[in-house]
Amino acid sequence: MRTTFHQELETIDQKLIGMTQLVQSAMGRATTAMLEADPTTADEVISDDTTIDALRREIDEHILRVLATQQPVAGDLRALVAGLRIDRDLERMGDLARHIAEIAADDFPRATVPLELTGIVHSMNRAALHLAEQAKEAIAFRDKECAAELDREDDEMDSLLAALYREVLASDLDMRTALELTLLGRYYERYADHAVAIADSVRFETGAPA
Amino acid sequence: MRTTFHQELETIDQKLIGMTQLVQSAMGRATTAMLEADPTTADEVISDDTTIDALRREIDEHILRVLATQQPVAGDLRALVAGLRIDRDLERMGDLARHIAEIAADDFPRATVPLELTGIVHSMNRAALHLAEQAKEAIAFRDKECAAELDREDDEMDSLLAALYREVLASDLDMRTALELTLLGRYYERYADHAVAIADSVRFETGAPA
Repeated sequence: MRTTFHQELETIDQKLIGMTQLVQSAMGRATTAMLEADPTTADEVISDDTTIDALRREIDEHILRVLATQQPVAGDLRALVAGLRIDRDLERMGDLARHIAEIAADDFPRATVPLELTGIVHSMNRAALHLAEQAKEAIAFRDKECAAELDREDDEMDSLLAALYREVLASDLDMRTALELTLLGRYYERYADHAVAIADSVRFETGAPA
Repeated sequence: MRTTFHQELETIDQKLIGMTQLVQSAMGRATTAMLEADPTTADEVISDDTTIDALRREIDEHILRVLATQQPVAGDLRALVAGLRIDRDLERMGDLARHIAEIAADDFPRATVPLELTGIVHSMNRAALHLAEQAKEAIAFRDKECAAELDREDDEMDSLLAALYREVLASDLDMRTALELTLLGRYYERYADHAVAIADSVRFETGAPA
């Protein structure tokens, strides 16, 4: 029974890691679609989000099945409950990438981001993808230390958001661009917050008596 | 053992209902603080958010304890897992109310919302509080039908957000007000989305074989 349980947990972790790769790919492509005004890529990101949503439901049901059949306690129980939190954060990260792709698709053929602000948006994308990569490693290695590092990197995202908002405030952009950049900045920041929340769930899981 | 389990579940539901009341109060007061440029109320909402966060941790631990000691299956298991989702949505609703209070506090003595847009913001607040009220009833009565009604009311929130954004786009507001209104609109909308997610969790819970 113990072996079966740990095999199940391993399978669930592999699904969570696969889901993390999907939301990384979604964010990377959404940013490309936006910065290069590429509606085909934007549409792909939007339609691929249903796969991410379906994977979340699959992982949820898998975890519920293991909870019901194996009735784990202590650290094993916490690991499963952490999985229920993590797949929800990943689903939201997918939604946020989709929102960015939706803005890109709406704006086509206009480019959403003015040339002088593409640098900040590139940096936000890079920070977002890096945080997602670390969240993935936290899941893969059940790494508590990794979780602490994410908090620091999230501060960088907050600085980038503040810089973006300062640029918007000091600009004479048209209202539509200002509104879209405000939302875009928020989407990258929230994506990063969810990556940090995943690391927190890993910390919650490993902090419990095993 | 069954009686104990259902007593525990009842206690958890009461805590979730209490937490819903706190996030309703937070949103109502945050809106007042913003529309009336009242920094004292804004500061109260900001500091009260720690109570909401603490309550979430308490409910999480309570649910984990019941999962570990009672090892429920089927509908009972789903009810507890739903509780873990609901308290997270409620925590986020508290955060969103706090974000609105933070904008109000930052702007003082300036009023954030221009007079001609207070009507829409009032309506968004009313819709948000009404959705939270229905989420509370969904929890209290484990009411699946209530959940379907929330979806419809959330459409009203989406229309209000679209109306707010149309007004911002057509305006010649200063950049700071435009940026803040964009975020504010998004905060009300997300608050409403989390209320709908709570109803979805109730639906998930009651839809399972009991």
